[in-house]
Amino acid sequence: MKELEELILEKGKVLDGNILKVDSFLNQQIDISMMKKMGIEFANHFRDKNIDRILTVESSGIAPAVFAAEELNCKCVFARKQKSLTLDDNIFHSTVYSFTKQVMKEIIVSKDYLKENENVLLIDDFLANGQACKGMIALCNQAGANVSGIGIVIEKSFQDGRKLLKEEGYDVFSLAKIKEFKDGKVIFEED
Amino acid sequence: MKELEELILEKGKVLDGNILKVDSFLNQQIDISMMKKMGIEFANHFRDKNIDRILTVESSGIAPAVFAAEELNCKCVFARKQKSLTLDDNIFHSTVYSFTKQVMKEIIVSKDYLKENENVLLIDDFLANGQACKGMIALCNQAGANVSGIGIVIEKSFQDGRKLLKEEGYDVFSLAKIKEFKDGKVIFEED
Repeated sequence: MKELEELILEKGKVLDGNILKVDSFLNQQIDISMMKKMGIEFANHFRDKNIDRILTVESSGIAPAVFAAEELNCKCVFARKQKSLTLDDNIFHSTVYSFTKQVMKEIIVSKDYLKENENVLLIDDFLANGQACKGMIALCNQAGANVSGIGIVIEKSFQDGRKLLKEEGYDVFSLAKIKEFKDGKVIFEED
Repeated sequence: MKELEELILEKGKVLDGNILKVDSFLNQQIDISMMKKMGIEFANHFRDKNIDRILTVESSGIAPAVFAAEELNCKCVFARKQKSLTLDDNIFHSTVYSFTKQVMKEIIVSKDYLKENENVLLIDDFLANGQACKGMIALCNQAGANVSGIGIVIEKSFQDGRKLLKEEGYDVFSLAKIKEFKDGKVIFEED
């Protein structure tokens, strides 16, 4: 998605440890106009998959997910990283290893909002090692829901996530694919 | 907002400790159509305030905030409850006391996304004791931004939040105002 790549080049900051800071439009400040366009891109790619529900993880996945859900006219739910007071024991949960934080984190979703045989589209802000997606897939498996696709805003193609998910047969669609960080600059995959 | 009240009556569950569970459309599953209508309501109320930016707190505030920002055509930012790896020391922070969890929590926003003299609309999912709003007001004060209004999805009018914020002169606009929970039922304020 050309416009997203341009925004990343303009606003993104490459930090140590292969971290791309895109707080200015995705991870803290939210560029509504860009989110809306991203939602349309996701919807166009997955429209023929009869998506019943989008599943994302709080917090940065929420804005892209809601606009994709608006376009696909489907349900939308976010998994929580911490158990909230109003979540009872009626939950699916899985653990996600965070390479950047080097801790195992639990993600949780109520059994009421992920159902057997639903076609679920996973949406997340970043794909690196694929751990968050693996966690969401585990939630869907527990529910007996079908993972019908995976929509990613920014993929770090030099890490293992895509390979791992493709090997398991998932349709992974990323709006921007980063080939490498070179001298502090973002280099995208050629289309 | 009549339609929201009806949704609360239909889907909300009153739990012990005056907690209203609205996970089915606000706090975990997101009812996109309702969020969009709520965004329009917020925008209609605050349209003449020349809002530059909406500030909310992750995670449940994000969906109402993005749709209000879309309508008001303004910037949108969410404060984080935990410091993320990509947030450096260039931050405003304040502490929020959570009555339900009985802990002090820090909320954080980058100095890049809250600016002097901006007109800021605060949006949050619930208003009870007003602690989250007080925390967001503190962030705005640190930035030298103007708090131009406070938009709340569900207000528990029997708690101190509204009184506290009104006494300080803020325009508090709530889409649903709960007068009390009576025998496990939600009773709204009369208009």
